[in-house]
Amino acid sequence: MAGSNYGKVFTVSTWGESHGSGLGVVVDGCPAGLDLCEEDIQCDLDKRKPGQSPFSTPRKEKDRIEILSGVFNGKTTGTPISLMVWNKDQRSKDYSKIADCYRPGHADLTYDLKYGFRDYRGGGRSSGRETIGRVAAGAIAKRILSTMGVDILTYTKSIGTVTIDNKNFDRNAIHKNYLCMPDKEAVSEAEKYLNDLIQQHNSAGGIIECQINHLPSGVGEPVFDKLDARLAYAIMSIGSVKGIEFGTGFNAASSTGLDNNDSYYYDEEHHIQKKSNHAGGMLGGISDGTEIILRAAIKPTPSIRSEQASVNKQGEDIDLVIEGRHDPIIVPRAVIVVEAMVAITLVDMLFINMCSTMDTIKKIYH
Amino acid sequence: MAGSNYGKVFTVSTWGESHGSGLGVVVDGCPAGLDLCEEDIQCDLDKRKPGQSPFSTPRKEKDRIEILSGVFNGKTTGTPISLMVWNKDQRSKDYSKIADCYRPGHADLTYDLKYGFRDYRGGGRSSGRETIGRVAAGAIAKRILSTMGVDILTYTKSIGTVTIDNKNFDRNAIHKNYLCMPDKEAVSEAEKYLNDLIQQHNSAGGIIECQINHLPSGVGEPVFDKLDARLAYAIMSIGSVKGIEFGTGFNAASSTGLDNNDSYYYDEEHHIQKKSNHAGGMLGGISDGTEIILRAAIKPTPSIRSEQASVNKQGEDIDLVIEGRHDPIIVPRAVIVVEAMVAITLVDMLFINMCSTMDTIKKIYH
Amino acid sequence: MAGSNYGKVFTVSTWGESHGSGLGVVVDGCPAGLDLCEEDIQCDLDKRKPGQSPFSTPRKEKDRIEILSGVFNGKTTGTPISLMVWNKDQRSKDYSKIADCYRPGHADLTYDLKYGFRDYRGGGRSSGRETIGRVAAGAIAKRILSTMGVDILTYTKSIGTVTIDNKNFDRNAIHKNYLCMPDKEAVSEAEKYLNDLIQQHNSAGGIIECQINHLPSGVGEPVFDKLDARLAYAIMSIGSVKGIEFGTGFNAASSTGLDNNDSYYYDEEHHIQKKSNHAGGMLGGISDGTEIILRAAIKPTPSIRSEQASVNKQGEDIDLVIEGRHDPIIVPRAVIVVEAMVAITLVDMLFINMCSTMDTIKKIYH
Amino acid sequence: MAGSNYGKVFTVSTWGESHGSGLGVVVDGCPAGLDLCEEDIQCDLDKRKPGQSPFSTPRKEKDRIEILSGVFNGKTTGTPISLMVWNKDQRSKDYSKIADCYRPGHADLTYDLKYGFRDYRGGGRSSGRETIGRVAAGAIAKRILSTMGVDILTYTKSIGTVTIDNKNFDRNAIHKNYLCMPDKEAVSEAEKYLNDLIQQHNSAGGIIECQINHLPSGVGEPVFDKLDARLAYAIMSIGSVKGIEFGTGFNAASSTGLDNNDSYYYDEEHHIQKKSNHAGGMLGGISDGTEIILRAAIKPTPSIRSEQASVNKQGEDIDLVIEGRHDPIIVPRAVIVVEAMVAITLVDMLFINMCSTMDTIKKIYH
Repeated sequence: MAGSNYGKVFTVSTWGESHGSGLGVVVDGCPAGLDLCEEDIQCDLDKRKPGQSPFSTPRKEKDRIEILSGVFNGKTTGTPISLMVWNKDQRSKDYSKIADCYRPGHADLTYDLKYGFRDYRGGGRSSGRETIGRVAAGAIAKRILSTMGVDILTYTKSIGTVTIDNKNFDRNAIHKNYLCMPDKEAVSEAEKYLNDLIQQHNSAGGIIECQINHLPSGVGEPVFDKLDARLAYAIMSIGSVKGIEFGTGFNAASSTGLDNNDSYYYDEEHHIQKKSNHAGGMLGGISDGTEIILRAAIKPTPSIRSEQASVNKQGEDIDLVIEGRHDPIIVPRAVIVVEAMVAITLVDMLFINMCSTMDTIKKIYH
Repeated sequence: MAGSNYGKVFTVSTWGESHGSGLGVVVDGCPAGLDLCEEDIQCDLDKRKPGQSPFSTPRKEKDRIEILSGVFNGKTTGTPISLMVWNKDQRSKDYSKIADCYRPGHADLTYDLKYGFRDYRGGGRSSGRETIGRVAAGAIAKRILSTMGVDILTYTKSIGTVTIDNKNFDRNAIHKNYLCMPDKEAVSEAEKYLNDLIQQHNSAGGIIECQINHLPSGVGEPVFDKLDARLAYAIMSIGSVKGIEFGTGFNAASSTGLDNNDSYYYDEEHHIQKKSNHAGGMLGGISDGTEIILRAAIKPTPSIRSEQASVNKQGEDIDLVIEGRHDPIIVPRAVIVVEAMVAITLVDMLFINMCSTMDTIKKIYH
Repeated sequence: MAGSNYGKVFTVSTWGESHGSGLGVVVDGCPAGLDLCEEDIQCDLDKRKPGQSPFSTPRKEKDRIEILSGVFNGKTTGTPISLMVWNKDQRSKDYSKIADCYRPGHADLTYDLKYGFRDYRGGGRSSGRETIGRVAAGAIAKRILSTMGVDILTYTKSIGTVTIDNKNFDRNAIHKNYLCMPDKEAVSEAEKYLNDLIQQHNSAGGIIECQINHLPSGVGEPVFDKLDARLAYAIMSIGSVKGIEFGTGFNAASSTGLDNNDSYYYDEEHHIQKKSNHAGGMLGGISDGTEIILRAAIKPTPSIRSEQASVNKQGEDIDLVIEGRHDPIIVPRAVIVVEAMVAITLVDMLFINMCSTMDTIKKIYH
Repeated sequence: MAGSNYGKVFTVSTWGESHGSGLGVVVDGCPAGLDLCEEDIQCDLDKRKPGQSPFSTPRKEKDRIEILSGVFNGKTTGTPISLMVWNKDQRSKDYSKIADCYRPGHADLTYDLKYGFRDYRGGGRSSGRETIGRVAAGAIAKRILSTMGVDILTYTKSIGTVTIDNKNFDRNAIHKNYLCMPDKEAVSEAEKYLNDLIQQHNSAGGIIECQINHLPSGVGEPVFDKLDARLAYAIMSIGSVKGIEFGTGFNAASSTGLDNNDSYYYDEEHHIQKKSNHAGGMLGGISDGTEIILRAAIKPTPSIRSEQASVNKQGEDIDLVIEGRHDPIIVPRAVIVVEAMVAITLVDMLFINMCSTMDTIKKIYH
């Protein structure tokens, strides 16, 4: 059944395989009148591009985005925006070896189990390149959010066992290092950690954190379409994500009510404030107007140069060596993907919230 | 916008408030021909019932389920199944105090921010009683799953700082203790931990774990409706859940590719097996036929007897004391709610998977 | 699969069978702050009530609506509104005859073909009583529309071969005759026509017309969710409707471009006006702010007192005589059902249209 | 809001404007294992191509379909199928005149009212070229249906005042004449009728009829997703369609119960048969396994060479002459579009019906 469509009123339909003609997305429900050009999208796509650091593959993917519809004279028209990139770096190579065997940690086996066969070239639809459409759509969502003043900050919180120290937190550092970490000291440590793993033909995972500021209050639809539930859905749909938490997250489980509750008080301007933000900016699945904070756990890259035990379709146990170009860490490249899914979800939920009260409806129809 | 409907082909629409006439659910998309009577549902509802242990409220909720439609001569007819319980234990009391103030950790403030006002009696729609409809629908989903041999085991993994020891794991113990823990020793420790908190007028959270066995392979729809993404969505929509993880979960972030990949081999009957299950039974969002394992973090009960700093609508800082009957721990009562959301999601995704290949379609239409 | 849910952001989930416990509907997505009480809904339900005229069945259905959730202190809270009526007039009678045979023109056979068996008591889910939930939800939709000034006028245009004459059109006459016709002369003629059919143990169909005025322009979402497409979907989902048309409708097929196009001009206040309204108030599936006009064809009541050829499950040809109480015409009672489905669709599409442009979004989030 | 997506489990998302880069569609939910190549789709696209007859525009649209994803080694993979055609015949011309005025019968005004501005080149998204994506998706749906033996026959029933005579009905004639009529005598008459209109710089409409045979029984989901309701939705979403009817359709309104009911009998092989098919193959919105028959009314082409009264944005009444190449009749080209929407709906509803009973579910999961 159709599973490549996300969103309720602002929707995203992705398509494409790693080594097919190209990859793309149709964004439907984008309001008319938004300024949009290809460069607005390209800058986000470039963030997920490989070949930028010693820790990502040396492939030179061009990944130039093309807007095929929905924009006229520099503005969105309210009709579907079709975006695509052509696959250009498709070396015609011999896939016969990989076609018949199942790489541990990849979706090779489960695609075969579900569909009876699979496009085995470079992972096909389960490739990380599938996220191109998400990032492109996310760039549009972020432009909408920026007109409302909503600010999303996404970064690498940890790589393997190396975690940032909040005392060193420097927002400006994030895009000045290959690892997208907001802590320069942690960067040095993480680089060392990764270099060791590379030498061992091994790979690392990590944690991505996202802060959302200036989101209006009231966003989120009880009881199933709570804002955190929709964000969890969106982010867990990214390949390699193994967990998600909000605010204090899993640590809340071992806290107590007295410690975990966020107390209220009035500030000098008679606005309600909270003494803490353990809840992460939402209660009952509805935003309260303060910072939303979430974290996603990313598993280590499954493609490693080491020999691994596996099987082939011919019924044989094999020792598998995965050749080719692979990232020892995908976390930094996944930062923009998490941000994209967050942005898409926020736009969708902001639009949905517009018809929550008779008062808002009267602002439009009076 | 409508947010109280969950599911794509097997859908669940809940309604009702804590102190309104009643609470209910409409289950649509249940196939015709399933044996169903009220007792099948009541047994699950009784598991979330309060008043059963020293750690849950002494309220005596009757919560008798009534089937209002969709069942004829003991079998489902394929039409919507409407289920409800009447609210009987509605003490007519003075809510004027609570009506004007915002309880920390509750959704009082965010409902007011979103809707302009709220049903303040007992939490209204954001009450834990909202889960009655989920549990009732889950009981139907579980009956469908049992005809396929799918087995779901859900239990308390930890309460506060007390975690079960897998060496002591005893499936049969789960429903023999008030805390739903599969480890008798952990139960004793947790009871002590809770009694201390009760004396301090404080509360605890915990972690719920769920194992799914004998689920067919191939379930889950890339790329957005991955099985783990839909499960995350479903479970995060339960109030008080602050995080979710699958398989190794957040620990995967600090593992390495070599350690985290699950290697394949052929067993003696020439079936493909895995040497480990760090992935938790899914790759690429599709089930591989092995055990699915997930954990949900539950925050400490926000209603505590201690005095808390808060505010009222009149613009005053106040010291809030929440009166009435409140659980110091909701984790054991939430076990059946997590199980219900898992079951509903599995049925939905199993049905959706039925049209994945031309071969399955030909089994129905030939 | 779930088929009893209609709407995208303002949704309606109906449930219930003719002779089960009751019938109901869950309305989700109703904005907070709408004044609502049971009487607001009851007045529409009473319009579909039988036993009001010589041309409807003498059953005395009470059909008292109960609001079970979603309303607090006389206002909607933004949460799901659950509404139901109890089935009170369920004579315990012997259904063994009807259980095994297939009534021509009813859905007996197709329900058995689809589901393997059916609730044969009074048509079960395919009974006209299923529309109770629609009418109740429609009453809420109409209250929302009335706050915007949208006006829906629905009436019987023809009964059998008797059609109203627009020269005699009298809006006030509609609810002053049993047949809901806006033309007193046509009423007399139609009564005579129906009395003849009753004597012949036969039944009649007819055409219902609906005029929508003061709907804002811009409503309808190209290309699939055109306003006329959604209205057609909604109205065709009512049992017994066999066709629908908008504006000139089927007559447009034999018209010419010159005759059928609606020319524009500026009126004295410099507003754009049309010289005609053959299109029926929409172009490209989007409302233009003028009157929307549509017609639905209703087939003759299939339950007739005459003997009919049919079959039973035992493999025999039979002569069927349908006993009991049946309307010789359902058109007048269907008027309020058509109006309800129109109203539900308009509210849904009005809400959806709220996020069509960056300008409207800025009115809410600025 | 997103309105360019149709279908529930087999979904179609179209994009593109008349004079943008191209037009396309993403088909999601197509089962894996269907043989598919571009030629399978091209043959249907060629049927809607202009420039084939004296009654369609002399434009030479190439409209070569490209499959961009979802097909591997000649078979569908179960992942989204992205299809597109490039717009090649985009003469760079001066649109300044048309940009500021509203063509009667077109969606120029309503797009401006809804979105604030529009892509005025050739109608933009409201152009007939939007149907390219529908026809391409329909070709895939028809391939799925053909594996089940479902047969769809679509043709022109009438052009203006000229209607086919069923006595002359010749299935093989349909694609041997430019007008897609199954009656050679009617073709001659219609050609004469059209030539007269061309000389008068006028245009014609007509009626398209569709017969569906060998559809399994049980298809259609009460109460809102009745098969006829979904077909009405799908077909009314095609531009220029002004009405739809099933079986006897609007004539049922003036018939009687005795005449309109379809009586049952057992045939010699003990199968239930009907003496007539006034219902058009469905009761209660569920297929009964016999022929489904429907008709759609198409309005006359709004673009005519005659001078028409209209207005411009500058506030002036104008005499509009539409230059360029326009069909005096679009009915024959719309035949394949109606067929496509029927096919897409049937596949969607067939898949949805697969989980209607526990028996069908056990055929897949046992």
